Amino acid sequence: MKQKKLFLEHIAYQLRYYTVIMTTEAGSGHVTSCLSCAEIMAVLFFDVMQFDPNDYSHDNNDRFILSKGHAAPILYAVWHLLGKISKKELLTYRQAHSRLEGHPTRRFPYVDCATGSLGIGLSVGIGQALHAKLRNKTFKTFVLLGDSELSEGSIWEALLIAVHYKLDNLIAIVDMNRLGQSTETMVGYHAETYQEIFEAHGWHCFIVENGNEIAALQHAFNQNIFVAAKPTIFIVHTIKGAGIAMCANKTGFHGKAFAKEELGEVLKDLQECAGDAAKPVDYSWRANLPKSISTQKKQNAKIIDSPEQLFFEKKYATRKAFGITLATLGNLNQSIVSLDAEVKNSTYADIFEKAHPNRFFQCFVAEQNMVSMAVGFQARGEIPFVSTFGVFLTRAHDQMRMAAIGNNALRIVGSHAGVSIGQDGPSQMALEDIAMMATLRNSIILYPCDAISTARLMNIMLQYNDGISYLRTTREETEIIYNNSHAFEIGGFHVLKKSDQDVVTIIGAGITVFEALKAHELLKKENINTRVIDLYCIKPINAEKLASAIKQKNRFIVVVEDHYKQGGIGQILFEALAPYNVKINHLAVDKIPQSATPEEQRVMHHIDKTAIIKSVKSFF
Amino acid sequence: MKQKKLFLEHIAYQLRYYTVIMTTEAGSGHVTSCLSCAEIMAVLFFDVMQFDPNDYSHDNNDRFILSKGHAAPILYAVWHLLGKISKKELLTYRQAHSRLEGHPTRRFPYVDCATGSLGIGLSVGIGQALHAKLRNKTFKTFVLLGDSELSEGSIWEALLIAVHYKLDNLIAIVDMNRLGQSTETMVGYHAETYQEIFEAHGWHCFIVENGNEIAALQHAFNQNIFVAAKPTIFIVHTIKGAGIAMCANKTGFHGKAFAKEELGEVLKDLQECAGDAAKPVDYSWRANLPKSISTQKKQNAKIIDSPEQLFFEKKYATRKAFGITLATLGNLNQSIVSLDAEVKNSTYADIFEKAHPNRFFQCFVAEQNMVSMAVGFQARGEIPFVSTFGVFLTRAHDQMRMAAIGNNALRIVGSHAGVSIGQDGPSQMALEDIAMMATLRNSIILYPCDAISTARLMNIMLQYNDGISYLRTTREETEIIYNNSHAFEIGGFHVLKKSDQDVVTIIGAGITVFEALKAHELLKKENINTRVIDLYCIKPINAEKLASAIKQKNRFIVVVEDHYKQGGIGQILFEALAPYNVKINHLAVDKIPQSATPEEQRVMHHIDKTAIIKSVKSFF
Repeated sequence: MKQKKLFLEHIAYQLRYYTVIMTTEAGSGHVTSCLSCAEIMAVLFFDVMQFDPNDYSHDNNDRFILSKGHAAPILYAVWHLLGKISKKELLTYRQAHSRLEGHPTRRFPYVDCATGSLGIGLSVGIGQALHAKLRNKTFKTFVLLGDSELSEGSIWEALLIAVHYKLDNLIAIVDMNRLGQSTETMVGYHAETYQEIFEAHGWHCFIVENGNEIAALQHAFNQNIFVAAKPTIFIVHTIKGAGIAMCANKTGFHGKAFAKEELGEVLKDLQECAGDAAKPVDYSWRANLPKSISTQKKQNAKIIDSPEQLFFEKKYATRKAFGITLATLGNLNQSIVSLDAEVKNSTYADIFEKAHPNRFFQCFVAEQNMVSMAVGFQARGEIPFVSTFGVFLTRAHDQMRMAAIGNNALRIVGSHAGVSIGQDGPSQMALEDIAMMATLRNSIILYPCDAISTARLMNIMLQYNDGISYLRTTREETEIIYNNSHAFEIGGFHVLKKSDQDVVTIIGAGITVFEALKAHELLKKENINTRVIDLYCIKPINAEKLASAIKQKNRFIVVVEDHYKQGGIGQILFEALAPYNVKINHLAVDKIPQSATPEEQRVMHHIDKTAIIKSVKSFF
Repeated sequence: MKQKKLFLEHIAYQLRYYTVIMTTEAGSGHVTSCLSCAEIMAVLFFDVMQFDPNDYSHDNNDRFILSKGHAAPILYAVWHLLGKISKKELLTYRQAHSRLEGHPTRRFPYVDCATGSLGIGLSVGIGQALHAKLRNKTFKTFVLLGDSELSEGSIWEALLIAVHYKLDNLIAIVDMNRLGQSTETMVGYHAETYQEIFEAHGWHCFIVENGNEIAALQHAFNQNIFVAAKPTIFIVHTIKGAGIAMCANKTGFHGKAFAKEELGEVLKDLQECAGDAAKPVDYSWRANLPKSISTQKKQNAKIIDSPEQLFFEKKYATRKAFGITLATLGNLNQSIVSLDAEVKNSTYADIFEKAHPNRFFQCFVAEQNMVSMAVGFQARGEIPFVSTFGVFLTRAHDQMRMAAIGNNALRIVGSHAGVSIGQDGPSQMALEDIAMMATLRNSIILYPCDAISTARLMNIMLQYNDGISYLRTTREETEIIYNNSHAFEIGGFHVLKKSDQDVVTIIGAGITVFEALKAHELLKKENINTRVIDLYCIKPINAEKLASAIKQKNRFIVVVEDHYKQGGIGQILFEALAPYNVKINHLAVDKIPQSATPEEQRVMHHIDKTAIIKSVKSFF
């Protein structure tokens, strides 16, 4: 027992040592933020957690999430001591092509998500802990938080939800080192204030007074912390820069590396502070291996072959088609889970909930936490479909961005697209969602116009594992125009109307497909023939194929979209089709909408059939 | 006293009556969410608040913010009873062109901000309350919250900050009606749970058991609620749908209006529930007018005439030039306040703080709250400059969107643009900020490349009151290339290199201007002449002027930007310049970046001089 303590003290010393040499070599990095949590990391990884260092993805490993992602060096140092990262690689920290980035991404194989934007880790942990509950796994999820990030609202969303779901397999640890980047935190070292707040929320809360002492942490973490139905949080009082006297508990050292000239002095300081702990200890550490559990074999995604069988009416809102399809996909794929932000009766996620109540997770009005929860689910092999009003996804923009950086393949569904929602007014209209989702690396954006295309595109989402897939759904009912014979693909589109006499191509998507079809009919009566394309895949665009589909004589195009002009379909096409000598008229929403009926909205914003007709004629 | 109570009961009855007739006429609206807070609204507006209904913008009026914006009808009904909105106008609710939208926007003149995206109002209130503290005004700010929105993280950011700033002039009221849109809230009617949480945070907290009884609310709100240095919150137990038996405390009525056929029955139900309160009361109400205070006269914005005087070095990071300029503008304009999210030593907002400590507001790591706080400041006549890392503005995307809808002219500054930040890695790089800010209605986007242009562009921001202005700053130092003689304007750009022999125009902005200049020099040595344009204003683009500046023979353009391909400068130019027969090569970031030096980053992502040279040559 005593030997173990000495061993852990030496581990903490080594973690500090490697942190210093890595960051000094790199010339940058958050040294003091690592130093404060050296003992926490030592005790968690080498005493508390049950996991197999040689099998990181083991189904029942305890999970660790470094929410304070800037402390990346110490995590890399841990995995060096676990034998998985060489010293040589450690010294590539922050260099081009190194897996050891300034903040952890999933290029480093021993994390489940990218961190570095603060306040995200706890929500990811909730997803992992809920997965354990759902699949009867016994692993625990540990999340290490900085105290500065406790001011992020996403943390509080997570605190509330963890209590709601009674996550007694979730353990949060706050590295309370008091000092943020530029100033002291609001709460400072008043651990009791945190404790009162967390306990009031319903968390089981411990204060660890001496968070840079191995024995104190061993005592705290190894006691029986389990309280049925309650998540646990430790407030650990630490010293920022602990273990190196010249920077300990001082401001002005955040995010700064020591200079190479200082290194000798710093390492001497480190050694002096460590005392005996700087010496190797005769202790043969063995990993605390996880219990084996029998888990479901991973199955390949099963898609819906015959969407026609799902729909019996002539018209469906695509949001409703989403709900129906998701429930059916849920029958075929046991890994699908549904997360919705207290709008399930608007997004129609409630259809899935009715069919699969145990795989539906009500996330309440807390979009940030919902998206990061989905990351946690995804990292453990579930297939999360996240849904809310498209516009409220802006609330989770940063979380989606981080999921994209971490290559967590989320399926995200935004309903109530565009001005076509009508009377509720601008605050409820998704008019920037395409622009936002398009900036996510490796994302695809799918935009169905009817029920059949919704189902087909959801098949594609299910099979897309290279990034985030986004489905944009519509509030209004639209007529079914496709049948089982229509194929859909990434980068695809459908030519709905075509003749040899076409003079202009009208490209619509979602609700505007129907305005395009109406315009087509009216123009036909005036002997103006137009081609109509349903661009159901907004990203990526297969420009070559699209250009060849437009091959009427003049290559005149009218693009009409229920989205702001910026970053939407039109702007994407201007760039994509630039090499093909086309002329594009772009109809899109360009002023702040007001309340009005859906029809009035489309007229007011010039994305209706009349505007299309006018635009088509303007070419001549 | 008794007569007052009867009067207020009748007011509550009338508020319900008008809510019902407005929503029935409109065919939609959130009736039950209004009904629950009828007594709260009656007591606040007709008994508690000190304000002049005939002078809404009075400097010392108590302010009211309807954070639960879907209860808009009852706010409109209040202002009808206050004599400012006719019954005829009430019945235009949700109709095209009506000022009475589904959720309040500032087209309705009696609100300070648009609401309808949940969890924003409290933060706006903090901005207003801080303004009162700053300017020694005695008004109070009241914020009415729904209980469903308490799950939004932004609320918790606000709770923490309000305590930090000791806002004893801020009163929050939670309409605890238990029922959300589709399900019960996590806390339900457990008012004590809320109370424990709020008290633990340091709020002064009252529970009102009978929130649909005038007397209970009068008692609660009119007692001495003032506790020095503490904000106050009331948890008011109400019934969703109160006052109409057929919908009271029932699920399935959220966001639903009664049918016109039902109206008679509903109004009968309402009258029966109201009893005597349905009858007019002989009571002559007079507004509780605010105390007059002497306030500073509003001054016109004063700009910096000679930016050269601010800078003495050859090189500055534009982020530092921002800090220097802001401090100077702060000397000239007493209304400027600075808000920063715990990165003041990175954004250089700390230079302003040092010069004007009382007008600097540390917002900690809580970007959502910061942006909405700025809305509150702006609504009271201050000129807030909000700064943080550009990428972390994604955290407040929804709050900026709502500010844009509400026409609150914020000045927003995002630092650490692009891959050029270097080693910190992708989580810290703003690569989607232009796309995001461009979708904000009436926004302008300014992107300086040196210190002088930073100062000049900040002059423009100061004078721009039609929407949000965004300044994108760079981490690295860049050489000063402008002097006092250079003029800057919205929609403007500068031609930095020009000859009659130019064969290609290179358009850069910010850091890429310098890559463009280097490429220009190198190409010149090969006798390839290029024009170089600094596109310091990304939105709006003066396309005609820009096209005429490009008028070399071939109209070949290379656009190079440190931003993702989607929604950035390139895509904006493809559309803007489409009518001018140009050919554009677009160099932008197109894959997830990794840690590397700034120079390496630009090479890896093909936005450096070499990539530009290659792109220029590809035209021939």
